[in-house]
Amino acid sequence: MQKLNIGHLLIGKPLETDELQHQAISRPIGLAVFASDALSSTAYATQEMLIILSLAGGSAALFGLSIPLAIAISALLIVVTLSYRQTIYAYPNGGGAYIVARDNLGELPAQIAGAALLTDYILTVAVSISAGVEQITSGFQGLIPFRVEIAVGIIILMTIVNLRGVKESGRIFAIPTYFFLATMFLTLGIGFYRYITGTLDVVQGVEVMHHSVLEPLTLFLVLRAFSSGCTALTGIEAISNGITAFKKPRSHNAAITLIWMSSILIALFLGITFLAHQIGALPSETETVISQLGRTIFGDGSILDYLVLAGTALILLMAANTSYADFPRLAALHAGDGFLPRQLTYRGGRLVFAWGIVALAVTASLLVIIAGASTTQLIPLYAIGVFLSFTISQTGMVVRLRKIGKMKPGEVVQGLETVLEYDPHWRQHLIVSAIGAVCTFVVLVIFAITKFTSGAWFVVVLIPTLVFTFFRIHHHYKNVAHRLSLQGARPELHKRPVRTVILVDDVHAETVRMVDFAKSLDHPWEAIHIGVNPEKAKIVQQKWEERIGEGELVVIPSPYRLLAEPIQEHIRTLQENTPGCFVHVIMGHLVMDNFLEQVLHQNSSFIFNIALSGMERVVVTSVPYQIHHLSAAEHESAAALETDAVN
Amino acid sequence: MQKLNIGHLLIGKPLETDELQHQAISRPIGLAVFASDALSSTAYATQEMLIILSLAGGSAALFGLSIPLAIAISALLIVVTLSYRQTIYAYPNGGGAYIVARDNLGELPAQIAGAALLTDYILTVAVSISAGVEQITSGFQGLIPFRVEIAVGIIILMTIVNLRGVKESGRIFAIPTYFFLATMFLTLGIGFYRYITGTLDVVQGVEVMHHSVLEPLTLFLVLRAFSSGCTALTGIEAISNGITAFKKPRSHNAAITLIWMSSILIALFLGITFLAHQIGALPSETETVISQLGRTIFGDGSILDYLVLAGTALILLMAANTSYADFPRLAALHAGDGFLPRQLTYRGGRLVFAWGIVALAVTASLLVIIAGASTTQLIPLYAIGVFLSFTISQTGMVVRLRKIGKMKPGEVVQGLETVLEYDPHWRQHLIVSAIGAVCTFVVLVIFAITKFTSGAWFVVVLIPTLVFTFFRIHHHYKNVAHRLSLQGARPELHKRPVRTVILVDDVHAETVRMVDFAKSLDHPWEAIHIGVNPEKAKIVQQKWEERIGEGELVVIPSPYRLLAEPIQEHIRTLQENTPGCFVHVIMGHLVMDNFLEQVLHQNSSFIFNIALSGMERVVVTSVPYQIHHLSAAEHESAAALETDAVN
Repeated sequence: MQKLNIGHLLIGKPLETDELQHQAISRPIGLAVFASDALSSTAYATQEMLIILSLAGGSAALFGLSIPLAIAISALLIVVTLSYRQTIYAYPNGGGAYIVARDNLGELPAQIAGAALLTDYILTVAVSISAGVEQITSGFQGLIPFRVEIAVGIIILMTIVNLRGVKESGRIFAIPTYFFLATMFLTLGIGFYRYITGTLDVVQGVEVMHHSVLEPLTLFLVLRAFSSGCTALTGIEAISNGITAFKKPRSHNAAITLIWMSSILIALFLGITFLAHQIGALPSETETVISQLGRTIFGDGSILDYLVLAGTALILLMAANTSYADFPRLAALHAGDGFLPRQLTYRGGRLVFAWGIVALAVTASLLVIIAGASTTQLIPLYAIGVFLSFTISQTGMVVRLRKIGKMKPGEVVQGLETVLEYDPHWRQHLIVSAIGAVCTFVVLVIFAITKFTSGAWFVVVLIPTLVFTFFRIHHHYKNVAHRLSLQGARPELHKRPVRTVILVDDVHAETVRMVDFAKSLDHPWEAIHIGVNPEKAKIVQQKWEERIGEGELVVIPSPYRLLAEPIQEHIRTLQENTPGCFVHVIMGHLVMDNFLEQVLHQNSSFIFNIALSGMERVVVTSVPYQIHHLSAAEHESAAALETDAVN
Repeated sequence: MQKLNIGHLLIGKPLETDELQHQAISRPIGLAVFASDALSSTAYATQEMLIILSLAGGSAALFGLSIPLAIAISALLIVVTLSYRQTIYAYPNGGGAYIVARDNLGELPAQIAGAALLTDYILTVAVSISAGVEQITSGFQGLIPFRVEIAVGIIILMTIVNLRGVKESGRIFAIPTYFFLATMFLTLGIGFYRYITGTLDVVQGVEVMHHSVLEPLTLFLVLRAFSSGCTALTGIEAISNGITAFKKPRSHNAAITLIWMSSILIALFLGITFLAHQIGALPSETETVISQLGRTIFGDGSILDYLVLAGTALILLMAANTSYADFPRLAALHAGDGFLPRQLTYRGGRLVFAWGIVALAVTASLLVIIAGASTTQLIPLYAIGVFLSFTISQTGMVVRLRKIGKMKPGEVVQGLETVLEYDPHWRQHLIVSAIGAVCTFVVLVIFAITKFTSGAWFVVVLIPTLVFTFFRIHHHYKNVAHRLSLQGARPELHKRPVRTVILVDDVHAETVRMVDFAKSLDHPWEAIHIGVNPEKAKIVQQKWEERIGEGELVVIPSPYRLLAEPIQEHIRTLQENTPGCFVHVIMGHLVMDNFLEQVLHQNSSFIFNIALSGMERVVVTSVPYQIHHLSAAEHESAAALETDAVN
């Protein structure tokens, strides 16, 4: 039943809807798919803290501040992890911020949380891929001028892979995630061994980033460094959004994966920050901190050095994949509720939300191009959205847990999304969620203030704009539904007079096909030609008499060479003469074997369709006439013929 | 009859075809419109010669070579002018290289000449606008980083102006052309006065262009400088292409304008080259030679200095306008002969070839962006096309004059394009054309060789590619014409059975409209729904029974969520059951008041149209249903309603 086509070769053959179930993934694969975003942020979080601290000068004591900052961020991470673990159990069908907010707080907070997350998913792609390309160019400095081109190329490749579907994605991404973990723990292990044995060197030959103006070391600057470091937390919500992708028991598997992920994340982040300080790593525009770490621990140009860079680059590039899973899924939720275009709810032939994937790829590519694939340029925009959604989601959990607290022991209530069951430990759960909500809210405020002028203002403006747009779209769909609704009643069906008009451009085989169709309908019809060129009109009329000879071809003069307006005028006359009629306009349409040839014949039908679609009860029929490629023999006879009629 | 619309506000109200005649222009306006390209090249021709000479070092004696080179180029210009003057008289209806070649040499040379000229018209826009922006940034150095943005902005503005039509363009461009001539002759006059009186200074404070590697002064380098200087000749063919734009007697007026133009051009080019040498002008990336001349003669920062820059910038920007007149006109000639898409022959509402203008604007903008709006980057690509067309055109004239020489005295023969009349002076005319052809051919070869590696290779590859494409298009149109041709015979008209299928997505007011239409046609019909989502399919079927209650809604299951394939399958079954029938597919089409809302409803009809257009005798009817904006009162009642049916 399926013809082979290029789309299938690139993105695989279509899958049946029932196969959706079997796409479920195991915990190790789940870790690879959903944790890559969170884990990969260790590749830039330390470095971005150091870049901010370097604004106050380049002393080692100053850079040492990164260690207490990393510890504070790790504490925050533990709070958020414990809080999200509760969410995963409360929402086994997927507990993203959008769903939790909609369920407990209402439509507006849900749309805000959704807008914030959608923004951040796009930034995840842009930041991760830019950071990944920076790892690559740390190893191959000759590629530095091509960062943007490489980044966009990777986005295109990743888009194709994701249009193939989640299961293959999981498999593809498991290898790099575990490869990264292996190389990184080896780096940290050997690094600590050399630190303890006193053989750890200081990094040499780094082209340090220079700031034209230095700033004093203020609390503001420290908080700004803290904000940059908090990008380490991005991505930890991915699992709560993707619970349904796990094997059963879903909540259990997802929660365990979450704990694994956070533990690994803390170990990597603290380890990298500590060792980076010990080797005296410096912020640089041409070399990442990971690269400095790798070559100091393993020796410059050693195979292991390159493997560390390769592993880091891979996990970063694969981290973008988290967004390829979550962005389209969230966009489909919005669209399903009527807050984004319905097209986003359509699953493609490979069970993925193709429109969402393409939308993500296009916007992320734009960001990469605008920021010149620089992580440092993108970081101030990043993570605000995630922290906003953290805050809303945990506030939603607080509301939910208060509801549960008011229930009687043993009582069970069917909520909108989930079953609410009395829980004797509701109070301690509530405290965890409340602490989480307050902490993430405080960080959100620190973020918005300390990074406002360096880019955060854009996100602060963007999110309300998105929310406004979502509600406008919702309003539109509701209006249209109202306009179309039959309100349960059975409408009267009307048989109306039909006035048929054939639009003739020239007289040839296509014209014969149109006349055939009009005759077959057994209604009276008339043929008209728009006389843009009076000489041509005369020839066409003459050809009509000679070669069709049935009915009359009326020429409507068009001294202004307009195509649509004379027809509109003519139709209005018909409608006045036969009130309430359908006007049935028949147009020819030459169909070529390929797109390029088709372009040579797209003349007027587009203009007609636009012009007539606004007219009440004017129905447009397109009669196709297929022109296939000629055989060699036909070629010869064609060559012998003179041009007689060309559309 | 005409509604006011935004298009009209921007590009003016439509003009009647008859008004085409009255758009004819006088000689002074003709000089402004057609000479700006040729005259403006004096703004960069001298400078580009100096840039090449500076490759051999920066001595004054070396730069002095520019003077004999300029004299040689002026001599070439006189030869070409005399030769083209003959062409203008021989082809009073327009004697562009394309027409002369087609008339005398056949299709292939004509297509080559056309391809060469089309290429060069695009380059004229790119080079002139880049050079113009360089004049502006010479005066306002702070704008240097925005050269590309400014250049593209100007192209967009110029495109809008040109979509308004030739007459207004002529008037708009007359002022800058004459302003340029006034300021430039004032500059040269005062410059020579100061030279004679010995008060001419040497230019100070130029940021000289540095070359990392110097080359020896070889004949090759001198010829390369000569090639760059030959860009001064570009644009002198413009008048011969645009003879029909002149008032009658056209040939006479055009020929006189050509002589004026060439005389002014030689005076300016020699004057600028001589004075530039006297003031010791130096090639620079931040300041043009014209700017150095202006401030040395008038004093740095004087009003006259700025006026010279303004005049030069204006004529350069307006020079691009020559291409806006000639490119679309030539493209329409190609298209009329079936070598380019037919759309290019359509005159828009303002009597201009809108498609050609837009095509020119887009390609020129791309070139400007790729070359970073640098004249020096673009120059190696420039002028090859023009010299190729010069050579072909003059060779065509030689062939024509030989034909005339073979005629008897007093004999008159009707040629393809023009009347051939015996001329006793044919031999001396032939010699002029032959000398012109040989000279331009020699320059063409020098061009291609000396500039090959710095960019000319692209044009050397591009022109044959274009010619090949033109012939492919021609072949395609001939094939289609053969396929469609009724070959003069009267075909049999067939009345065939019609099987009507209504595609139902959901049941609401739009569905009622479709059923109304199907009933009105008085043919049996069936309704089908593609069951992508089985639950939705059940609801739709139930709604159909409750609210339509006529006929049956058949659900075609689609486990792969495909839309088009199940319908194609169904249609094939219908065609097998009723051989030779028309299958008439009726689809609904929601029409919104504005484009953005329309986007929210473009779901499946696009997919269906593509999928069904390839099927023989499958006719698709689109039944529009218009949703207009709600009034305030309707808003309230809509808000009170629940979502019931959304498309």
